[in-house]
Amino acid sequence: MAKNFLVLNGPNLNLLGTREPGIYGGQTLDDIYTRLRAVAQENNASCEVFQSNHEGELVERIHQARGCVDYIIINAGAYTHTSVAIRDALAAVSVPFIEVHISNVYKREAFRHHSYLSDIAEGVIVGLGVYGYEAALLYALGK
Amino acid sequence: MAKNFLVLNGPNLNLLGTREPGIYGGQTLDDIYTRLRAVAQENNASCEVFQSNHEGELVERIHQARGCVDYIIINAGAYTHTSVAIRDALAAVSVPFIEVHISNVYKREAFRHHSYLSDIAEGVIVGLGVYGYEAALLYALGK
Amino acid sequence: MAKNFLVLNGPNLNLLGTREPGIYGGQTLDDIYTRLRAVAQENNASCEVFQSNHEGELVERIHQARGCVDYIIINAGAYTHTSVAIRDALAAVSVPFIEVHISNVYKREAFRHHSYLSDIAEGVIVGLGVYGYEAALLYALGK
Amino acid sequence: MAKNFLVLNGPNLNLLGTREPGIYGGQTLDDIYTRLRAVAQENNASCEVFQSNHEGELVERIHQARGCVDYIIINAGAYTHTSVAIRDALAAVSVPFIEVHISNVYKREAFRHHSYLSDIAEGVIVGLGVYGYEAALLYALGK
Amino acid sequence: MAKNFLVLNGPNLNLLGTREPGIYGGQTLDDIYTRLRAVAQENNASCEVFQSNHEGELVERIHQARGCVDYIIINAGAYTHTSVAIRDALAAVSVPFIEVHISNVYKREAFRHHSYLSDIAEGVIVGLGVYGYEAALLYALGK
Amino acid sequence: MAKNFLVLNGPNLNLLGTREPGIYGGQTLDDIYTRLRAVAQENNASCEVFQSNHEGELVERIHQARGCVDYIIINAGAYTHTSVAIRDALAAVSVPFIEVHISNVYKREAFRHHSYLSDIAEGVIVGLGVYGYEAALLYALGK
Amino acid sequence: MAKNFLVLNGPNLNLLGTREPGIYGGQTLDDIYTRLRAVAQENNASCEVFQSNHEGELVERIHQARGCVDYIIINAGAYTHTSVAIRDALAAVSVPFIEVHISNVYKREAFRHHSYLSDIAEGVIVGLGVYGYEAALLYALGK
Amino acid sequence: MAKNFLVLNGPNLNLLGTREPGIYGGQTLDDIYTRLRAVAQENNASCEVFQSNHEGELVERIHQARGCVDYIIINAGAYTHTSVAIRDALAAVSVPFIEVHISNVYKREAFRHHSYLSDIAEGVIVGLGVYGYEAALLYALGK
Amino acid sequence: MAKNFLVLNGPNLNLLGTREPGIYGGQTLDDIYTRLRAVAQENNASCEVFQSNHEGELVERIHQARGCVDYIIINAGAYTHTSVAIRDALAAVSVPFIEVHISNVYKREAFRHHSYLSDIAEGVIVGLGVYGYEAALLYALGK
Amino acid sequence: MAKNFLVLNGPNLNLLGTREPGIYGGQTLDDIYTRLRAVAQENNASCEVFQSNHEGELVERIHQARGCVDYIIINAGAYTHTSVAIRDALAAVSVPFIEVHISNVYKREAFRHHSYLSDIAEGVIVGLGVYGYEAALLYALGK
Amino acid sequence: MAKNFLVLNGPNLNLLGTREPGIYGGQTLDDIYTRLRAVAQENNASCEVFQSNHEGELVERIHQARGCVDYIIINAGAYTHTSVAIRDALAAVSVPFIEVHISNVYKREAFRHHSYLSDIAEGVIVGLGVYGYEAALLYALGK
Amino acid sequence: MAKNFLVLNGPNLNLLGTREPGIYGGQTLDDIYTRLRAVAQENNASCEVFQSNHEGELVERIHQARGCVDYIIINAGAYTHTSVAIRDALAAVSVPFIEVHISNVYKREAFRHHSYLSDIAEGVIVGLGVYGYEAALLYALGK
Repeated sequence: MAKNFLVLNGPNLNLLGTREPGIYGGQTLDDIYTRLRAVAQENNASCEVFQSNHEGELVERIHQARGCVDYIIINAGAYTHTSVAIRDALAAVSVPFIEVHISNVYKREAFRHHSYLSDIAEGVIVGLGVYGYEAALLYALGK
Repeated sequence: MAKNFLVLNGPNLNLLGTREPGIYGGQTLDDIYTRLRAVAQENNASCEVFQSNHEGELVERIHQARGCVDYIIINAGAYTHTSVAIRDALAAVSVPFIEVHISNVYKREAFRHHSYLSDIAEGVIVGLGVYGYEAALLYALGK
Repeated sequence: MAKNFLVLNGPNLNLLGTREPGIYGGQTLDDIYTRLRAVAQENNASCEVFQSNHEGELVERIHQARGCVDYIIINAGAYTHTSVAIRDALAAVSVPFIEVHISNVYKREAFRHHSYLSDIAEGVIVGLGVYGYEAALLYALGK
Repeated sequence: MAKNFLVLNGPNLNLLGTREPGIYGGQTLDDIYTRLRAVAQENNASCEVFQSNHEGELVERIHQARGCVDYIIINAGAYTHTSVAIRDALAAVSVPFIEVHISNVYKREAFRHHSYLSDIAEGVIVGLGVYGYEAALLYALGK
Repeated sequence: MAKNFLVLNGPNLNLLGTREPGIYGGQTLDDIYTRLRAVAQENNASCEVFQSNHEGELVERIHQARGCVDYIIINAGAYTHTSVAIRDALAAVSVPFIEVHISNVYKREAFRHHSYLSDIAEGVIVGLGVYGYEAALLYALGK
Repeated sequence: MAKNFLVLNGPNLNLLGTREPGIYGGQTLDDIYTRLRAVAQENNASCEVFQSNHEGELVERIHQARGCVDYIIINAGAYTHTSVAIRDALAAVSVPFIEVHISNVYKREAFRHHSYLSDIAEGVIVGLGVYGYEAALLYALGK
Repeated sequence: MAKNFLVLNGPNLNLLGTREPGIYGGQTLDDIYTRLRAVAQENNASCEVFQSNHEGELVERIHQARGCVDYIIINAGAYTHTSVAIRDALAAVSVPFIEVHISNVYKREAFRHHSYLSDIAEGVIVGLGVYGYEAALLYALGK
Repeated sequence: MAKNFLVLNGPNLNLLGTREPGIYGGQTLDDIYTRLRAVAQENNASCEVFQSNHEGELVERIHQARGCVDYIIINAGAYTHTSVAIRDALAAVSVPFIEVHISNVYKREAFRHHSYLSDIAEGVIVGLGVYGYEAALLYALGK
Repeated sequence: MAKNFLVLNGPNLNLLGTREPGIYGGQTLDDIYTRLRAVAQENNASCEVFQSNHEGELVERIHQARGCVDYIIINAGAYTHTSVAIRDALAAVSVPFIEVHISNVYKREAFRHHSYLSDIAEGVIVGLGVYGYEAALLYALGK
Repeated sequence: MAKNFLVLNGPNLNLLGTREPGIYGGQTLDDIYTRLRAVAQENNASCEVFQSNHEGELVERIHQARGCVDYIIINAGAYTHTSVAIRDALAAVSVPFIEVHISNVYKREAFRHHSYLSDIAEGVIVGLGVYGYEAALLYALGK
Repeated sequence: MAKNFLVLNGPNLNLLGTREPGIYGGQTLDDIYTRLRAVAQENNASCEVFQSNHEGELVERIHQARGCVDYIIINAGAYTHTSVAIRDALAAVSVPFIEVHISNVYKREAFRHHSYLSDIAEGVIVGLGVYGYEAALLYALGK
Repeated sequence: MAKNFLVLNGPNLNLLGTREPGIYGGQTLDDIYTRLRAVAQENNASCEVFQSNHEGELVERIHQARGCVDYIIINAGAYTHTSVAIRDALAAVSVPFIEVHISNVYKREAFRHHSYLSDIAEGVIVGLGVYGYEAALLYALGK
């Protein structure tokens, strides 16, 4: 059966491509989504996407993934470091997930070095730019 | 005058009964609410209920409790450990409250051992399963 | 078969009802025991009680509970925060237990926020006054 | 060209003037807004205002400020101490901002002594009551 | 009766205007004092000033303020982070005071993030440049 | 009415005069008690004494002091650093007390630098040898 | 002259052989004592034994060892991690001692990784099961 | 010009495929190297490989990469958490590198959560199994 | 030969008797000095006194004590917690000293719980009010 | 079948018997090896030995033990406190091992109180001098 | 042009040669100054010297160095560990400086391991005795 | 007799002069060695040199110095911060040594602020560039 992926993006990632292109690159979320959907399609898979600045909406989008998504690829942005609620949602739905960060969080403030998601994630990709999403997708396709 | 209670549940608790029944038991929030309303009614009291995955909605529901609720029974879920906003809302409305956790948080990750609510709560009930809500209600009825 | 409960109280709790009634209420340990025995009896259960200011005596009373007590309800008082020996005794006899504190320890000194018992307890009840013992008993009766 | 200011208030600040007037004074947010608008107008400037109990709404209101607001004056309330998302939003839009707290946070709980905003703020005003907003506005008008 | 203010400056602030003007601006202490005296005078108040590089002299100048100064505005410079003696002097004379820092200490070394004065100050103003003194004065005039 | 004092000594202090006389001096507890009784008598006061190696016995001896002792002079020895139970007993009986240590605990292991008693004691005397008991008694006689 | 050993066991070790045999093995304290006495006898030495759940009794048994015991072999159980009194008793009597733990404490809770005895012990044996006592005895016999 | 990659593996990784295949999978280092060389070749690139259990040899192999390698892909194994020398070598040769871990280090002991390499790496890939090397190579090929 | 004592007082202690008499009592430094001189004289000893708000002056007064003072009684006030210079001066002159605090520092802010002097003092007297100086003197007279 | 043991010694242990004999005794590694081989032989077992100052060599010697050694007895010396690589090697080969230290590490610098090996060792022997190796061997022979 | 050096010494260093000669050697400050002036003269440089026990005086002497001193050689003594004011003065005048300590501070109390000066110094020389000043001077002469 | 010195350099220092000349200067290790040999020769001393990237080789080179080297001058590079083995080797051979760092480690990452060597070194020289070796040699020549 065709695999189904969910790509989740957290707060401020709607600004991608317009904010600090020196750090985050010039691609917008839509550019990324287009690319990921294409890669998924080439592999007979499908790919849903969702971005929100609201912790509660991310929690609820994860709830909906239960039973219909094979892998979640999540860049929770700032909520990575502060949200137990998103962690709990991911644990509750039992969908394996890959954590992605566009920039290298280890080069940044100390509070970004801790993630509430990593120890329940299957894997973590950090600092590969927007390619990180694609690498996560390729990995999940191969499972 | 008849006492009025507000039972608040935080993020992911809408999944109760469906998620990890080994840990949280097989009862849904609705089952719990039915039971609590029955207990309240037997004691000539009433019992409102509210669940949200949104920190801001919980804050605002607490605001509404000012002046019309005698006791809040709150299981703030993940927000227990991260939300100063809910703490501030509870402190602002000056309604006494009991903090409830279904599972024993002390058997779990270290970050669950700290609560932003406990030191301003009247009491805390941990690990008694869904009976914890009922114990809180019985206590509050007796005050 | 009739359930049998053991209610254990630690150091200084013999002063209950005479010491700082503003904090701990005016009931003595005997008042509490009378009430708990009555509740147990109504439920065809029995209830033993024991108080000691000696860590070693509490350890030994716990040892005796092995094989003849269904649930321990323990307010270890100050030993909650300092006694690994009582923790080990409780773990050794494999009797499920509920930890009770009359006052809300989270409103008090920081060293009272840590318990050597909580992570091996089934549940913890804090700040409900002497009703906490009763709530623990009712919970255990329902198991 | 006329300067444009945005005054942002976080969770529970909608209760200002009604909650704990001994601490926060008897003025409501509307009283404050009226005063700030008057001060702005006297200086040929304009002043938008926004309050929300939702972290995500504050993030999005900050996004809208990009390119059309000269200074943000923000009292993020409880989110000051927990929100990396608001910090990231403020950093992303590159609008200089002043952090304001009505009460003196250093007289309060230890967790209020750390702010996720201060090190990227231009300045911080603490404990001057509602005058703090006005002081921030006067400062920003003078830049 | 006319209010009387005391403006205190700690170590190295005698170099203002000559040292690192990029950070601290080009105004000297005398320029600041002239401005503050003018603002005070416009409001029928008076304003004494004192700078010292000696912890003991600052302590003693604070002692002299008892009974004859309505508000102290203090930028204790480096002593902010190391002097319990100045804290004790301020507490002893019971004159309300505002703590001012010209630069944003939260952008600087971690040891500058703690102040021995803030929790007994009425308010704290950080990072508004030399305008911070004036904002403190305007606040105090309004009390 | 004649004042009544209670001098309490904790674990291992029964060895005084025989153990490490280089550190603790050559006087036995009896020598100390004889001296203290004499000083008390000269001042028309009386002085009870008690030593135990058992935490629980010290707790219970403190309980007995309620209502019949004016001051407790306590050298809790090792329990100073580990006993919340003794702290609670002292707080419960509301008898003012002076904490005494024969040797200078600050010259010794780090774990001896913290006392569970000091913040509820009236005063603390450290390192004056056995004279510390006498100094405490003289102080209490003068109150 | 024949060497004399004292084998001390702390709280809950009276349950050996009956509690968690998977961890502690099936031998009782009596089995161990029989074996140790035999080993001692083979080497023309004698071996006293003592177990107590009371910190104070262990302290006093150590006091009695002064001058008549050549080596103490002590498994202080839970008191290892909480008793300064036992440490002080061992230091006071100046009898060399070996610290023994049946299970490997480093595989267990973090609070078991610290011992109040180790730095004044001659040696420490951990995780060799009940053979640890024998190894300690053989070592001491060889000195 | 054809890109040249260096794949470095640290201590114990020579056991891959034979040790704990449940965790690390059944592929040997040679299998991985074969795959990576093939991927490189398809992209007109070349790929050198090196494994050592010796910190000093890894340091020296990194030195040799200066000026002749475009990207290093390094799984430093245990040295990730303890070797400043390898960090310094990587910093000294100024070759961009990707840090790879086969297993998810965040699910393991706390000491594995810190890496001496991450903050100077370009990116980090964790928990994707042996695919992590390939993802790193694909990323580097795309730069 | 007649013993000679030096009584040193640190910053803000010149305010004694006028500042917070509820805490520090109504006696001035002169009252204390008069009393101490009288006690010294009765014992054929002499007693010099010195108070300064300047760390450097206290250092230098200590230097002068070398060779001509038998005991220093020092209440370093705020410098107790911040001055390594005074510690070094006391260590350098090799005059034994007693540290005195009028109030019980353990009831106050955490930063007052650490003293840079205690571990090199002969003894420490805390919380006995102004009697603490006299107790120190009596002790030193008895040596 | 005859058991086979491997005795591993880490850095600087080649100096045994020549360095600080007051601490480590006068026996050389060869003396120890001779004794251990004799004890093994008496028990129909064999005993290989290896010492290295190189972390990588120790790692590789451990690798070789897989499948042909029944127990490792390891004194990793300084690497005990710094080597995750040796820990990983020991975990990888799944040979049970005993950790030995000749001196009592708990009497020494704080950094020697932590071992990277203890929590995966079967047992730990500390401070028994060179007899510690023999005790480990005797224990392992008995398994 | 001839280089000009300033040698600064902090509190208690006026006692050099008289205090603890075992640690600090028998040379006085004057001896050191004589030597340093000679070395400077040989190199056609000049050398001013200053010692003070007053933090404020050291601050002011540093201020005077601006524009007329090429290098400061400073042994701030105890102020090394407590004075942000001296750090700020050194940073303000922008004169490069070498930090010198006669004894090896790393062999001493933990609070001496941190210096407020080192991270803004050009270099630090520790434990070379009084030769440290000369080494600093020779270094500075060579720049 | 002619003194003999050993100059040891740790990992990555073989790159000196080629790596980051802005930080470390343009001199190679050979340049430094030539200079040091010349200085030694002028003083009728000799000077051996050794560099290694291998911790074990440095340990063994230190072993060889026993009895034939008067002073070791060591720049252990990265091993300064991670090697207990080198510390133990230096302690074992009882040759006094000077620790040298070319750059100012206090301006760099926090993990470089701790050295495993400093507290057993005779002295430490930091940040004087390659002159630091020479200063160490001159100091040692003068002893």
